[in-house]
Amino acid sequence: MTIPHWKQVAEAKRQSILDAIPEKWRIRGPIPSPTEQRDVTGAYIQQFLTEHEIEITETDAVGITERTTTGRWTAVEVTEAFCHRAALAHQLVNCLHEIFFDKALETARVLDAYFAQYRKPLGPLHGLPVSLKDQFHILGVETTMGYVGWIKTFQGIPEGEDSRYLTHESELVKELRAAGAVLYCKTSVPMTLMSGETMNNIIKYTQNPKNRFLSSGSSSGGEGALIALRGSPGGFGTDIGGSIRVPAAFNGLYGIRPSVGRMPYEGAANSGDGQNVVLSVIGPMAASARGLTLLFKSVLGQSPWLGDPGVLEIPWREEVEKETRRLIEGGPEGLAFGIMYDDGEVQPHPPIKRALKIVEDTVRALGHRLIKWEPPSHHTAADIASRAYDLDGGADVRHHFALSGETPHPQVILDTTGSPQKVAQEIAALNVEKREYQKLYLDYWNTTTQLTGTGRPVDAVIYPCAAHASVIPTKYATVGYTSFINVLDYTSVAVPVTNAGKGVDVVQEREYLSELDKKTDGEYDADAYDGAPAGIQLFGRRLQEEKILVLAEYLGEKIKKASA
Amino acid sequence: MTIPHWKQVAEAKRQSILDAIPEKWRIRGPIPSPTEQRDVTGAYIQQFLTEHEIEITETDAVGITERTTTGRWTAVEVTEAFCHRAALAHQLVNCLHEIFFDKALETARVLDAYFAQYRKPLGPLHGLPVSLKDQFHILGVETTMGYVGWIKTFQGIPEGEDSRYLTHESELVKELRAAGAVLYCKTSVPMTLMSGETMNNIIKYTQNPKNRFLSSGSSSGGEGALIALRGSPGGFGTDIGGSIRVPAAFNGLYGIRPSVGRMPYEGAANSGDGQNVVLSVIGPMAASARGLTLLFKSVLGQSPWLGDPGVLEIPWREEVEKETRRLIEGGPEGLAFGIMYDDGEVQPHPPIKRALKIVEDTVRALGHRLIKWEPPSHHTAADIASRAYDLDGGADVRHHFALSGETPHPQVILDTTGSPQKVAQEIAALNVEKREYQKLYLDYWNTTTQLTGTGRPVDAVIYPCAAHASVIPTKYATVGYTSFINVLDYTSVAVPVTNAGKGVDVVQEREYLSELDKKTDGEYDADAYDGAPAGIQLFGRRLQEEKILVLAEYLGEKIKKASA
Repeated sequence: MTIPHWKQVAEAKRQSILDAIPEKWRIRGPIPSPTEQRDVTGAYIQQFLTEHEIEITETDAVGITERTTTGRWTAVEVTEAFCHRAALAHQLVNCLHEIFFDKALETARVLDAYFAQYRKPLGPLHGLPVSLKDQFHILGVETTMGYVGWIKTFQGIPEGEDSRYLTHESELVKELRAAGAVLYCKTSVPMTLMSGETMNNIIKYTQNPKNRFLSSGSSSGGEGALIALRGSPGGFGTDIGGSIRVPAAFNGLYGIRPSVGRMPYEGAANSGDGQNVVLSVIGPMAASARGLTLLFKSVLGQSPWLGDPGVLEIPWREEVEKETRRLIEGGPEGLAFGIMYDDGEVQPHPPIKRALKIVEDTVRALGHRLIKWEPPSHHTAADIASRAYDLDGGADVRHHFALSGETPHPQVILDTTGSPQKVAQEIAALNVEKREYQKLYLDYWNTTTQLTGTGRPVDAVIYPCAAHASVIPTKYATVGYTSFINVLDYTSVAVPVTNAGKGVDVVQEREYLSELDKKTDGEYDADAYDGAPAGIQLFGRRLQEEKILVLAEYLGEKIKKASA
Repeated sequence: MTIPHWKQVAEAKRQSILDAIPEKWRIRGPIPSPTEQRDVTGAYIQQFLTEHEIEITETDAVGITERTTTGRWTAVEVTEAFCHRAALAHQLVNCLHEIFFDKALETARVLDAYFAQYRKPLGPLHGLPVSLKDQFHILGVETTMGYVGWIKTFQGIPEGEDSRYLTHESELVKELRAAGAVLYCKTSVPMTLMSGETMNNIIKYTQNPKNRFLSSGSSSGGEGALIALRGSPGGFGTDIGGSIRVPAAFNGLYGIRPSVGRMPYEGAANSGDGQNVVLSVIGPMAASARGLTLLFKSVLGQSPWLGDPGVLEIPWREEVEKETRRLIEGGPEGLAFGIMYDDGEVQPHPPIKRALKIVEDTVRALGHRLIKWEPPSHHTAADIASRAYDLDGGADVRHHFALSGETPHPQVILDTTGSPQKVAQEIAALNVEKREYQKLYLDYWNTTTQLTGTGRPVDAVIYPCAAHASVIPTKYATVGYTSFINVLDYTSVAVPVTNAGKGVDVVQEREYLSELDKKTDGEYDADAYDGAPAGIQLFGRRLQEEKILVLAEYLGEKIKKASA
């Protein structure tokens, strides 16, 4: 039997990524198996790095820019350190689709020369390496988005037929450059982007660095894994159903799903482009909350509405940031949170329940108001989202599979076998259904003014990001924990809380909410999950990015102290 | 031959509207024909009113609220004056669908009692009568939206089957009430809302008050006619392709088509609800620019984003208003305008060309910069809009015609005979096409920085609202003059300029741009158009409402002085 052509093409691409790693940064000898070395973060990856490289790469984005914008660290030394660590990360967990360290060092040298000449930084991200999910086009760099059929093409159009191949730059890329960022690698995504795990026929599977038996989450799973290994201080992913928050939570990171219209999507590749019932949005992911804010704010500082017609002209609202800080400083009764432990259909695994309890206890200990969140069914919203994703009956992704003839992986949540496309009136009805749900939810939100005692509705809501702390391959329970947010178009920030511990996180006898609940519960394995990061999401109404970022930073710090 | 049932139902509804006019306000004897009395504004309608009623109704919204919020005029006296004048207006040009003067006077009495008790107004619109297009639901008032099949139903669902019949209020209505407005009538619309003229089988045809041979424009044509007759100081219409700007221009008024997400559409009736490629938006129309701003700002003052999930949390931006005033006061070179005389397909009739020339000369005389506007083809955008309107192949409107069996009028621009619905991938492709056009246009806008000499791109663009000053029934040339704005989601304000004059507005021999151009030109009739208002639109980028409202007020005043 001969190997199908697409497998050869995929293998060549896979090899070319590895070949882009300089000889000096290759790991000698075989990579240990997960059984031998489950966790490759921290001490494990540090063994391959110098002390100075460790110092640089374990400083967060704010700490790095404090040094690069004042000349204490050069862009070149910072870039080299992250290139090295990213190269190691890829060898350990398959998290990169594109490596272009030479271009990065070129950029870094230009930035250092700029600083030497003008004695000031180019922008707020001067010299900061920023990683990007493989949906963003960068000059001279390919974008495959995990499709074998996209190799040597511009989004599936052969290189000879589309002049944008290797020449196009996405709006976000231009803005990051203008802010002084250094681009050096693109991170892995699942084929179609629609999956709870990151896998494709090119790089195969992106494992979770804290527990390589598990998934890094998806669809910005490469970002999650790379940042978890500190191969990047922060980067940008996209989220149509949880694709930023899930890999952030699965990797112990912060990640924001902003409302539609704040970050520029213009000129980026996408799956099912033009489906506009539930839109994909771009957002940063980072190792620290303040790093997340820095990335978000720096893009807004570039007036992205002048380059992307889809971006709202809403600059960073200092007054909202200040008002939120005032509420925090105003003492315990200044804030009110909602909390909800499950979606009524599937209860989360023990590590997630414990994470929620840690957050609840932290909020209570701080003396803030906490109410039980009892909104319109999240399941209804998750159902709207699923129908939105499947409007074309899988036609878009089947087209892209067919370009190479590659086989879809079973974790793709779309209909890959083909079903009829929905027609205009059905799509219109779905839009109305979505709007009606949004209205119900908003009205519910407003009613909490009667319960909080602050004179305002809740300031934010605490909720799981998924039913599990990371996930055993092919066992992702439901994306409903995150996709309802995309239907509402609310602001949500993933916040790291703890790690699964086989000693503490044990299953308790209980009534099941549904068949899926029973199945999901049965799939919990305390030993398999041991060590996996367990995060939650903190969400607010539409366009509340400034407020939720400030609250996530505040709560994240308090949680860290509480668990320390 | 018996009269079809729907005709009887329509006739009964038509009569019930007339019956709602108090005996004392009915015009005795027959209404003169257009040949006998072309223009029924000004002196003609004044003959039926007292001097005090004339004083009140010819004061603009700002002037009225200056008096009602300080106790100089009572809400009752103002309301009575407008009810009287609106009753006359309807008898002259068929501009109302619903009359509820009793409820209005009840509201006015409550407002007067409030003022008497607290010595302060309820809100910024305290005691101001505000008219509404017949898409808004008001407690105890029917909404037919011009469909015979909607009589005694909630949007076509029989009263017994939907508890919202006569009980539902649209979000905008609640907010206007909270701001102190008095609601007293709903204005006429064309069946389907998709037409350049206002006509339906209930009230028949809404004529243009300045020239009753012509249309009042559409689809907010009832608003246009009523405000032109000063039967209302201002009201709210909707615009998916020009439906606010066209009737504003055709009636010598100001009207704003804001970007999506500023005014609350929640809970209003619509045509083709859920089509979200090109969205309908709500905006005010008023006799004065400052009155327009007052209405817009007063709604924003109610935090509509807390009641409508589709509204962006962008309060009135004082800083943008101030900065625009600073540019104006900064002297002639502070501002730069683009100007364009036609869409490349159909040249406007002589009165519109003259109106544009008046604006051009005014801008030049003030010493501002003026550049020739040469954007990506507006025709491309108009084509995208038309395809968006027709995605369901007319299924939605055919459903509503079928409820009564009524006959569609030929001026409906949708496919009323039926064609196949578009499927998901076709709709997605149209969304992408729209986004690409928006990007091209935004890039073009940015390039004008090189031409203006102000260091900024143009501040606004001057352009026709239609090819004609009002229009002879069934002769509407193309909605492309307005619908490109809806595709771009830009802010556009209609500004009144002049009136057609048979002595000055004569056809000149010229080359034709297209067959449609030739046809449109052939339909110009200097005598028939004599007296018709000729306005233009002034447009800016997306979400530039504060800026364009200030510029429209400034230019409108200068034009008025120039033409005086």
